[in-house]
Amino acid sequence: MAKSKYEYVREFETEDKLLPNVFILVRIDGKGFHKFSAEHDFAKPNDVRALNLMNHAARSVMNELDDIVLGFGESDEYSFLFRKSTDLYQRREAKIVSTVVSLFTSAYVYYWRDYFPDSSRPKYPPVFDGRAVLYPSEVEVRDYFAWRQADTHINNLFNTSFWALVEQGKMSPRAAEVKLSGTDSKQKNSMLFEEFDINYSKIPAIFRKGSILLREQIPKDMDKDAIIPTLPETLPGSMVAKATLFTVIENSSSSLDTPSETTDSENVIA
Amino acid sequence: MAKSKYEYVREFETEDKLLPNVFILVRIDGKGFHKFSAEHDFAKPNDVRALNLMNHAARSVMNELDDIVLGFGESDEYSFLFRKSTDLYQRREAKIVSTVVSLFTSAYVYYWRDYFPDSSRPKYPPVFDGRAVLYPSEVEVRDYFAWRQADTHINNLFNTSFWALVEQGKMSPRAAEVKLSGTDSKQKNSMLFEEFDINYSKIPAIFRKGSILLREQIPKDMDKDAIIPTLPETLPGSMVAKATLFTVIENSSSSLDTPSETTDSENVIA
Amino acid sequence: MAKSKYEYVREFETEDKLLPNVFILVRIDGKGFHKFSAEHDFAKPNDVRALNLMNHAARSVMNELDDIVLGFGESDEYSFLFRKSTDLYQRREAKIVSTVVSLFTSAYVYYWRDYFPDSSRPKYPPVFDGRAVLYPSEVEVRDYFAWRQADTHINNLFNTSFWALVEQGKMSPRAAEVKLSGTDSKQKNSMLFEEFDINYSKIPAIFRKGSILLREQIPKDMDKDAIIPTLPETLPGSMVAKATLFTVIENSSSSLDTPSETTDSENVIA
Amino acid sequence: MAKSKYEYVREFETEDKLLPNVFILVRIDGKGFHKFSAEHDFAKPNDVRALNLMNHAARSVMNELDDIVLGFGESDEYSFLFRKSTDLYQRREAKIVSTVVSLFTSAYVYYWRDYFPDSSRPKYPPVFDGRAVLYPSEVEVRDYFAWRQADTHINNLFNTSFWALVEQGKMSPRAAEVKLSGTDSKQKNSMLFEEFDINYSKIPAIFRKGSILLREQIPKDMDKDAIIPTLPETLPGSMVAKATLFTVIENSSSSLDTPSETTDSENVIA
Repeated sequence: MAKSKYEYVREFETEDKLLPNVFILVRIDGKGFHKFSAEHDFAKPNDVRALNLMNHAARSVMNELDDIVLGFGESDEYSFLFRKSTDLYQRREAKIVSTVVSLFTSAYVYYWRDYFPDSSRPKYPPVFDGRAVLYPSEVEVRDYFAWRQADTHINNLFNTSFWALVEQGKMSPRAAEVKLSGTDSKQKNSMLFEEFDINYSKIPAIFRKGSILLREQIPKDMDKDAIIPTLPETLPGSMVAKATLFTVIENSSSSLDTPSETTDSENVIA
Repeated sequence: MAKSKYEYVREFETEDKLLPNVFILVRIDGKGFHKFSAEHDFAKPNDVRALNLMNHAARSVMNELDDIVLGFGESDEYSFLFRKSTDLYQRREAKIVSTVVSLFTSAYVYYWRDYFPDSSRPKYPPVFDGRAVLYPSEVEVRDYFAWRQADTHINNLFNTSFWALVEQGKMSPRAAEVKLSGTDSKQKNSMLFEEFDINYSKIPAIFRKGSILLREQIPKDMDKDAIIPTLPETLPGSMVAKATLFTVIENSSSSLDTPSETTDSENVIA
Repeated sequence: MAKSKYEYVREFETEDKLLPNVFILVRIDGKGFHKFSAEHDFAKPNDVRALNLMNHAARSVMNELDDIVLGFGESDEYSFLFRKSTDLYQRREAKIVSTVVSLFTSAYVYYWRDYFPDSSRPKYPPVFDGRAVLYPSEVEVRDYFAWRQADTHINNLFNTSFWALVEQGKMSPRAAEVKLSGTDSKQKNSMLFEEFDINYSKIPAIFRKGSILLREQIPKDMDKDAIIPTLPETLPGSMVAKATLFTVIENSSSSLDTPSETTDSENVIA
Repeated sequence: MAKSKYEYVREFETEDKLLPNVFILVRIDGKGFHKFSAEHDFAKPNDVRALNLMNHAARSVMNELDDIVLGFGESDEYSFLFRKSTDLYQRREAKIVSTVVSLFTSAYVYYWRDYFPDSSRPKYPPVFDGRAVLYPSEVEVRDYFAWRQADTHINNLFNTSFWALVEQGKMSPRAAEVKLSGTDSKQKNSMLFEEFDINYSKIPAIFRKGSILLREQIPKDMDKDAIIPTLPETLPGSMVAKATLFTVIENSSSSLDTPSETTDSENVIA
């Protein structure tokens, strides 16, 4: 039979099982999203529609893959934490990473029109890449999310200042960059307040702190786990503790599959 | 600065560079496409719209990634061959695999409506996974594609027979399976011809032999490489030889980005 | 310069850093030691000289590599546990494994004559191989050593019974094997006691339970850590706890580099 | 049974099979051999006894492992080339590397007294480490050996010049280093000839070009392959071609296991 003659090529496949009993973290990133956001007129410094679409796509991933207990998003990236004990695809790395990336990408294109109703699809297909990282302990997981959230803060403070100078201050991008160069957080905060009447701490938390999706076990009269959009302020300590312990909580209510059901709180993601 | 304090978590990232100077083959597969094709009423045993959408998505991948020299598709899977010397993403495995999978998935959802005009998007987001395999020599590459094409043939002959028995022969799926069990290719061919007047060798080549996308260098008065849909009969020998050598050919013309421009030949992919 | 022209070959070297913050376990095994022990007339079922030479070689390894906190030996194998935080050779796998194996092999040949004084060296060079395994938590480390110690027990009880039948019982090896086939521990214990007057529990612990080398911090008036031969009964629970925590203990005395200084206790290794 | 309860720890072992059909190169290096050679009064700049012992150890490795077709040694390092098709230990990396390193180390200690007859063993056990590198094609293999041989030349020319200045020229090591700093090969050659009457090209090839062990198939009336010490001048081109093709040659005679049988030619290794 022809099949057997050629099937030796399978011996070149390598086993890529990830070490058992450590946390698997998959992070995806938009490719060329500087251009993509410009082409689609994303609001500066943050486009809440785009962030909510990211969150929707992330929720789709978590709805499919039960072993993801925590998601964290900012800008065009999203991080997904799998429970330590997951045996998804026998922990094969390429299978896990490619599935997460494909699920996310698929949902991003699919739900685009729900967030950008003027167009039924983007101008061209968006692309994300992804990678897996292993973390043996809760401490590193907590610090991983603290790292991403610190990054969110730093980038957002810079971007908020930059676009205030450019859009309200009528500066050239180049001049704005020069003016911000070397300033620290305090100076940016003061500048925003004094020159543009922007109280940075009042900016929506989704911009300052990113978005969190936490899986929580739900009361026994409900039929499955829920993915809970959560106050980003609580990252990283207690949040990661919850995610890693995956504790039961009592009051979980929101149905998460339709963007219209998000709460009205400024700092809860769609 | 907060960043530095947490950034140690990056030390847990592992380098995943693929060995230089060997062929990289990335194969993607639809996940749950048995259900997906049933939900979307794909024609049995083959849905030419679905295959053409696969080919369109594959062409999108090859348009973005110049180092892919050959693509081969069948059913819900597609294989992409990178040239030996590619330094795409410094040959980082996760980056390469996740980008190919994301590009493919994105294009599949994006171009859906061009192939299934009754609906603007599928009923739910489709998902693909992917993996990379390394092949040191042209012999293994040729045998890899021979393996996939033999698989195409075996599956298609079985499926053609099965659906002839079920749809034309009014057999139950179970009875059809029993009848086919243990038959060889010759017996299936005879059965198709005698009972259903189907000359298997006249079935479109895209069904019997799969789809091929070959990148070829184009005449110097044209401005870039072209991805050429090619007669699948020529796989694997001379085709792989061409792909691996990436030879210059003279007559390449078709613009490949719009499905309407496919030729009328029955065995050229869309 | 000639060097630069060829140095591209280094790009084919791959990074093999082991995940940080997990336990590294290196296990070495004698190759062809069935033949090696026969050629050198090792006593059956256990040769205390050979075991003490193994222990001496293991101690040499631990004297060189400070980050090994626990060693466990049985027959022709030895396991070495590195502390979680070790950065030895930047955790490069091949470097760690090959160094441990080379140190062990070198010491085994070097100290041979101290344990087999009739010959200055073995009849031919002995060989060991090795591998590394990662364990994220103390539980797995404890169970790893429990696994090896259970193996020691099972093998030794079988071998003790087998050689009693062959040497004292004058059975053929084949007949002894048949007689033991299907017997459980209790039956072997009874047989040894009733037929050969051997109280299995009185056999030296080094045979029944293997050898342990534990690194312990020593009182501050001493100048470096000590590697303590320890009662094997205490494996695995408290022993691994000690090793993984690397606690300070008060009473550490023995100088460990010369085999003559071993205690006379039956269950303390040389 | 106790065994099964703990055996789950084996699941943490990872598969480390090397890609099929590429050359495996294992290079070993002495650890701390600067100190080791000083402690044992190795002659400067080269100690022929030490080099011959290295060659003997390498030959022991090649006698055990039939799939090594070429060895190249210089100073305290040795490189071993496996044939592409080797399936030794199912190409498991740790097993291959650790076995080569252990074999080499064992033989080095074992045969020490044959090359340093004043002492039955070194002052302390010597240690080597090792690593594997994969090379897909003959070109890279050839360039790998060219790289190591260029390294041999550069180091030996420097060392020869340095020790001429120190031992014959009565310079301090520091002054010798300063004098050589920035000189090219030609200047070193001239200096050696004019100041010390040393014609560098007349120095034994084993010092200038390293040692080569080539496995060759032997005439059919002989019973196994032979490992042939070969003129180092022939590296790398034809040598690697021979090794990689493993061609049959007619006239191979020397029995290689005893150092006394080496030829008197200056450029043939012991």
